[in-house]
Amino acid sequence: MYKIAILGASGYTGAELIRIISNHPEMEITVLAAHSKAGLGMEKVFPHLRSLKLPSLIKIENVDFSDIDLCFCALPHKTSQEVIKVIPKHLKIIDLSADFRLQNASEYEKWYGTVHEALEIQEEAVYGLTEFYREEISKARVVAGTGCNAATGQYILRPLVEKGVIDVENIILDLKCAVSGAGRSLKENLLHSELSESTNAYAVGGIHRHIGEFDQELSKLAGKPVNIQFTPHLIPANRGILATAYVVGDPNLVVKILTQRYENESFIHVLPLGETPSTHHVRGSNECHIGVVSDRIENRCIIIAALDNLTKGSSGQAVQNANLMLGIDETVGLNLIPLFP
Amino acid sequence: MYKIAILGASGYTGAELIRIISNHPEMEITVLAAHSKAGLGMEKVFPHLRSLKLPSLIKIENVDFSDIDLCFCALPHKTSQEVIKVIPKHLKIIDLSADFRLQNASEYEKWYGTVHEALEIQEEAVYGLTEFYREEISKARVVAGTGCNAATGQYILRPLVEKGVIDVENIILDLKCAVSGAGRSLKENLLHSELSESTNAYAVGGIHRHIGEFDQELSKLAGKPVNIQFTPHLIPANRGILATAYVVGDPNLVVKILTQRYENESFIHVLPLGETPSTHHVRGSNECHIGVVSDRIENRCIIIAALDNLTKGSSGQAVQNANLMLGIDETVGLNLIPLFP
Amino acid sequence: MYKIAILGASGYTGAELIRIISNHPEMEITVLAAHSKAGLGMEKVFPHLRSLKLPSLIKIENVDFSDIDLCFCALPHKTSQEVIKVIPKHLKIIDLSADFRLQNASEYEKWYGTVHEALEIQEEAVYGLTEFYREEISKARVVAGTGCNAATGQYILRPLVEKGVIDVENIILDLKCAVSGAGRSLKENLLHSELSESTNAYAVGGIHRHIGEFDQELSKLAGKPVNIQFTPHLIPANRGILATAYVVGDPNLVVKILTQRYENESFIHVLPLGETPSTHHVRGSNECHIGVVSDRIENRCIIIAALDNLTKGSSGQAVQNANLMLGIDETVGLNLIPLFP
Amino acid sequence: MYKIAILGASGYTGAELIRIISNHPEMEITVLAAHSKAGLGMEKVFPHLRSLKLPSLIKIENVDFSDIDLCFCALPHKTSQEVIKVIPKHLKIIDLSADFRLQNASEYEKWYGTVHEALEIQEEAVYGLTEFYREEISKARVVAGTGCNAATGQYILRPLVEKGVIDVENIILDLKCAVSGAGRSLKENLLHSELSESTNAYAVGGIHRHIGEFDQELSKLAGKPVNIQFTPHLIPANRGILATAYVVGDPNLVVKILTQRYENESFIHVLPLGETPSTHHVRGSNECHIGVVSDRIENRCIIIAALDNLTKGSSGQAVQNANLMLGIDETVGLNLIPLFP
Repeated sequence: MYKIAILGASGYTGAELIRIISNHPEMEITVLAAHSKAGLGMEKVFPHLRSLKLPSLIKIENVDFSDIDLCFCALPHKTSQEVIKVIPKHLKIIDLSADFRLQNASEYEKWYGTVHEALEIQEEAVYGLTEFYREEISKARVVAGTGCNAATGQYILRPLVEKGVIDVENIILDLKCAVSGAGRSLKENLLHSELSESTNAYAVGGIHRHIGEFDQELSKLAGKPVNIQFTPHLIPANRGILATAYVVGDPNLVVKILTQRYENESFIHVLPLGETPSTHHVRGSNECHIGVVSDRIENRCIIIAALDNLTKGSSGQAVQNANLMLGIDETVGLNLIPLFP
Repeated sequence: MYKIAILGASGYTGAELIRIISNHPEMEITVLAAHSKAGLGMEKVFPHLRSLKLPSLIKIENVDFSDIDLCFCALPHKTSQEVIKVIPKHLKIIDLSADFRLQNASEYEKWYGTVHEALEIQEEAVYGLTEFYREEISKARVVAGTGCNAATGQYILRPLVEKGVIDVENIILDLKCAVSGAGRSLKENLLHSELSESTNAYAVGGIHRHIGEFDQELSKLAGKPVNIQFTPHLIPANRGILATAYVVGDPNLVVKILTQRYENESFIHVLPLGETPSTHHVRGSNECHIGVVSDRIENRCIIIAALDNLTKGSSGQAVQNANLMLGIDETVGLNLIPLFP
Repeated sequence: MYKIAILGASGYTGAELIRIISNHPEMEITVLAAHSKAGLGMEKVFPHLRSLKLPSLIKIENVDFSDIDLCFCALPHKTSQEVIKVIPKHLKIIDLSADFRLQNASEYEKWYGTVHEALEIQEEAVYGLTEFYREEISKARVVAGTGCNAATGQYILRPLVEKGVIDVENIILDLKCAVSGAGRSLKENLLHSELSESTNAYAVGGIHRHIGEFDQELSKLAGKPVNIQFTPHLIPANRGILATAYVVGDPNLVVKILTQRYENESFIHVLPLGETPSTHHVRGSNECHIGVVSDRIENRCIIIAALDNLTKGSSGQAVQNANLMLGIDETVGLNLIPLFP
Repeated sequence: MYKIAILGASGYTGAELIRIISNHPEMEITVLAAHSKAGLGMEKVFPHLRSLKLPSLIKIENVDFSDIDLCFCALPHKTSQEVIKVIPKHLKIIDLSADFRLQNASEYEKWYGTVHEALEIQEEAVYGLTEFYREEISKARVVAGTGCNAATGQYILRPLVEKGVIDVENIILDLKCAVSGAGRSLKENLLHSELSESTNAYAVGGIHRHIGEFDQELSKLAGKPVNIQFTPHLIPANRGILATAYVVGDPNLVVKILTQRYENESFIHVLPLGETPSTHHVRGSNECHIGVVSDRIENRCIIIAALDNLTKGSSGQAVQNANLMLGIDETVGLNLIPLFP
C-alpha cells in the first residue's frame, strides 16, 4: 500500500481525493492537512466522510513526510508553491493548484499577477493532462494538475489542432460551469440564494486564467500562436462542466479524428455524430463524454464535451496521474459510475 | 375596461398572462379557455392564482366572443391556426404560438413540418417584437408573439446588423435556457430528477425552429441572406434565457450602437461596457439586460442578453403589444420588478 | 406621497421592501442606508433593481431624517436597537429585526444572549402580526416585525389556542424553511454547493429564537404558559416556509375556526378540509395559504401553512403595517401575485 | 460470479441496481428487462451508464431465466406479483415493489386497493429490512424490499418500540422526501418547473401506503396495535429522505439504545447526542445517519434519520440482501462513499 498525504483536505478537491482514494486498493491515506480547520476530525469538516477511518486534520507544518510515498496538494495557488518548495525532495507530488501549469515564468506572472517563487520546480513539473502526457507523467516527480475548464476544452481541441483540421484562428469555447469549481470559499455570488435560478457569464473577454493553459498547449501543437475565445458561465448546479466549441472544419473529419484518438482511452467517450452529452450523465465519474454535430452552415461544427469538474477535471485526473507515477494500472480506483439522478 | 379572453390558459404562458393582466388597470379577464382541463376552477389548475377572482376554464368551442375586445392565444402551434381561423374577425388577437411568425408559407412548412392552413391570417399578422414593429403592431388586428429565444437574440443583433457594424457571416449565438420555455408538457427530460444538476445542448446544428425567425428578420435587415449559428442549452432553472453572442466587430462601436438604440426604451437596459447580466436579475420582469465585453482578440466582442422567457420573452411582450393595439400606454401593467432572490 | 427611509437596504429584506414599495402609489423611497456597502449605487448591490430610480446607499449616521415619514429598519438585531434609540422621535418606525418582539427584557436576554439597551422603546413597541394587532399597530409609533417562522406558526395556532379547541400541551411545529431566511450572510452552510440537494434540521430541541415569540403570544392567549415543540429544517429553495403543525383536536372544528377567523382577511386563505398548500404557490406574494387534514387517528389533525418568508413573513408584513400606521388602506401595494413557476 | 437479472431496468431503482452491481466483485449482470423501452441499448435509456458493457433491454417475457442465480424485480406493484408468479421457482428473487411487504392479504388490499394474486409467494416472502431480518433473509427465496420511507422510519423506531422506552401512542414521523422516490413517471407535479422552489406535503393524514409497513412491523414489536402519525413532504432535491421523529421518552435512554443497537452495523451511524444528519451527507451511499436531540420539554426528544432513498432505501438494501441470500459478505459492493457536493 502506498502511503498518501493530502494537503488542503478541507476543500472540495481534497474531499473528492478522499472519496476516490478511500476505495483505492493500493493507496492508503495517512496524512490529512489543512490550514484553518486543522485540529478537527474529518467528520466535522465533511460529515459525508463520517464512516471512513481517517486521520484528523493537522497543520501542514506539522506533517511528517518521511513515510509518505505521494503527496497531493489541493491548496490555493501561491500557497501551493510555498509549501511544495519546502517539501522533502524524495516525495512524488501532484499539485492541483495553478502554480505549475504554466511553463513560462512570465506567463505565470501575467495570468496570476504575482512572481513565481519556485521556478526550479516549475521547470521540472509535467502538465497533468493524462491522455496527452502519459509518458512524461510516469517518470515525473512533480505533476501539475490542469485547470478543470482547460482539461474539458483540450479534450475537444487538441486532436483537431494537432491534425490541422480546424481553423485555429476561429475557435470559440463557451463553457457552462457548475459552482463547485469555485471551491468552498465564502463569496456572496456562491450563496444558494444568489446562484439558484441564476445563469451568468464571468471572466468574459479572454481574462479567465485557464486561458494561459490553452495558449501554451494549443500553440505548441499548432507550431504557432493560437488564441481561442473562451467564455465561462456559472450555472445553478454543483458539479459539471459542459464545453461547447464552435469550430470551422469538416464535421465528419472532426468526429472521425476524435473517435480514433480516444478509442483506446478508458475514460473519454466520443458519441456517434449528432449525439450530445449532459453533465448529469458524468457526475461523480472520471468520464468525459464528447459529441459532435454538423451545423447547417457548411464546414462548421459544434463539439460538446461534458465532465465532472471535481473528478475528471481535478481529483480523478490527479489519481489517474498518481497511478501512473506509482506504476499502478492507470484506471485502478477510477471505475466510478456516474450518480444519476 | 377592455375585456380579455385567454385561450390556452392551463399552460405557463397562460398563467403568466393572468399574473400580469390581473394587475392591469385597463384590462379585465372575462374568458379563460383550455382543452383537457376545461371545467376546472383555476385554483385547481394553478393554485398560485387562488386568491384572484377568475372565471373557470371552459372549452374553446364554448367561448362567447361577442363581448371580447382582445384575445390572447397561448395554444400549441397548429392548434392555434385552427382556432384563430374560426374566431370572429372583429377581435384583436395576439397569438403566442409559432403559427404566424414566419411570413413565408414554405418557410413555415420547412420549420414546422406541416402545411399552413390559415395563410390569409399569416399574411395579415405582424411580427410582435415590440421595439421594432411598434407602428405596425398599433394598427394590427393579429400580432404574432415572437419565439422567446428569437426575441433575446434579436435584441442583441438587430441594431448591429442594421447598422452594418458586425460581420453577418460570423454570428454565433449560444443560449442558456431555463426549462419553463418547454412548457408544462409531460416529457421525461423535463422531470426534476433528470434536469436538476444537468446541463445539455439540444436542437444543435441549426435545427431549432426559432432559427426561422432569425433568418427572416436578420436577412430583411441586412438586405441579403443571413444565417447565424444558434445552439440552445437547457439549464437547471425555471425561468430565464441568457444569450451569449460572439460577433466580429468593434466593441466600442457595438456598445455605442446598442446604447443609443435602446436609450429611450423602457424595458431594454444596456449595461456599461464590460458588465454582464444575469437571468436571476430579470426574473419575473419585462426587462432585458444587455452587456457588451471586448474580447482579447481584436475586433471581436461578446454580447450577452438576459430576459425572462415567460415575461419579456412571451407573455410580457404580449401584454406590451396588447397595450399598443388597444391604444393604452405601452408600459401600463408591466412595471414588474424582478423577484430576487 | 409619504417619504420612506430604509436602513439596512443591502440585505434581502431590504431589497424586498424596495421591490414592494417601488410600486406603492403612496410611498416614495427617499433614503437607503447600509453599513459596509454604503457609497454604492443600488444597481451594484442588487442588479435586479437596476431599472428603478433609487437613491444610492449612504451610511446610517449620514441620514437626514427630517423629511422622513416612516423608517424601516432591516438591520441585524442589537444593531437595530442601537440605531433606533437615536433616531428622531417624530418618526414612525418598523423594525424587522428581533429587537422589539419580546416584551419582557429577561426573555430578550435569555433568547438573544445580550442585555437590551433600549427598554423604553421595547415597552412602546407593538408586535407586528397584522391580523391580530391591527388596532394597536394603527396607533403605534414603533412596530416590531415578527419572526418569519413565528408568523407562519401563529397563523395556524392563534385562533385554535384562543378558542381552546386544541390541547396546548401537545403542539408540534415542524418547519421547512428556504434559505433566504438566513439572510445574505457569508456562511459555509449557505453556499449553493452545500445546500443544494441537502435537507437538514437546525436549532433542534427548542432552542430557535423564534420560540420566544411563540411562548409570549400563545401563553397570553391561553392564559397560562404554553410551550410548543418547534423544529426548523433548511430546504434547498430560496423562498418559502412550510409549517406542518401536529395538534390534538377535532379536525372539523379546527378547519371551521380557521376558516371563520380568516374569511375577511385579504391575505390569509384557508383551503377546504383535506387540501394542502405549497410554498411555490405563494412565492413573492403577501399570501398565506393554510390547509387542514384529519389524521387517521381520531381527534388529531395536521395543519399546514405556506408563506413567503421575505414577503408575508417579513417585508410584505412590514408594508402592510406601514399602511396601517400611515392611514392607508391595508392592502395597498400588496396585491403581488405569486410568481410561478 | 453470480448471474444477475434485473427486471424493470428502465426506472431509477433499476439504474441504481446497475450502478452498484457493476462494481460488485461477485455479481455479473446478464439480463436487463423492461416493458416500454425494451429493444433499446442502455446508453439510450440511461446515458450515464454508457461506459459499462451491459446487455440491451429485452422484454420480460423473452428472458431466459435458466442461467440466472438471482433476479431483482424493480417493477411497479401489481405488475411485480404477476411477473414473479410465473418466474421459475429455482430463482432467488428480491422484489423492490410493494407487493410482498405486507403479510396480511387484507392489509394489502386495504392499502393497495386490489386483491393480491400471488398469496403463496406473499406468505413465503421475508421483509427485507436487513438489520432486523438478517437470519430470515439469508435463508429466503423471496425477499420483499421495504418502502424507502418505511425503512427510514423503522431505523429510528424499531429499537425504541422493542425496548419499550417511548410512548407508542404518540409517535409522529414527519418526512422530507426527494423526488426520485416518485420514480421516473411522467406526472405534472414531478416536472422541474413545478417542483423546484417548492415544498409541500402529500398523502397527509395517514393515507400513505408505507404506513401499512409501520403498522405491521411496529405492532409486532410492541405486541399490540401501534398506529403512528406519518406525513411525507416533497422537497426540491433528487435523492434523500430526512425523517424527523417526535417521540415521548428519555433522550439519554433513546440515544443509548440506538447507539448500542447499531454499534456493530456497518451502514447505520448514530451521531453523538445533539448532532443531526443531512441528506446531502449520505447521497449515493448505503449509509443511514441518525441523530437524537433532547427537546426543551422534559421527556421528549426529536430523532432525525437521513438516508438515500435509492440506495439504502431501495437498491442498496436490495444488494445487501442479495449478498446475504448468496452467502457473500453483507457489505461487499456497498462501500459507496457519499457524493458531496
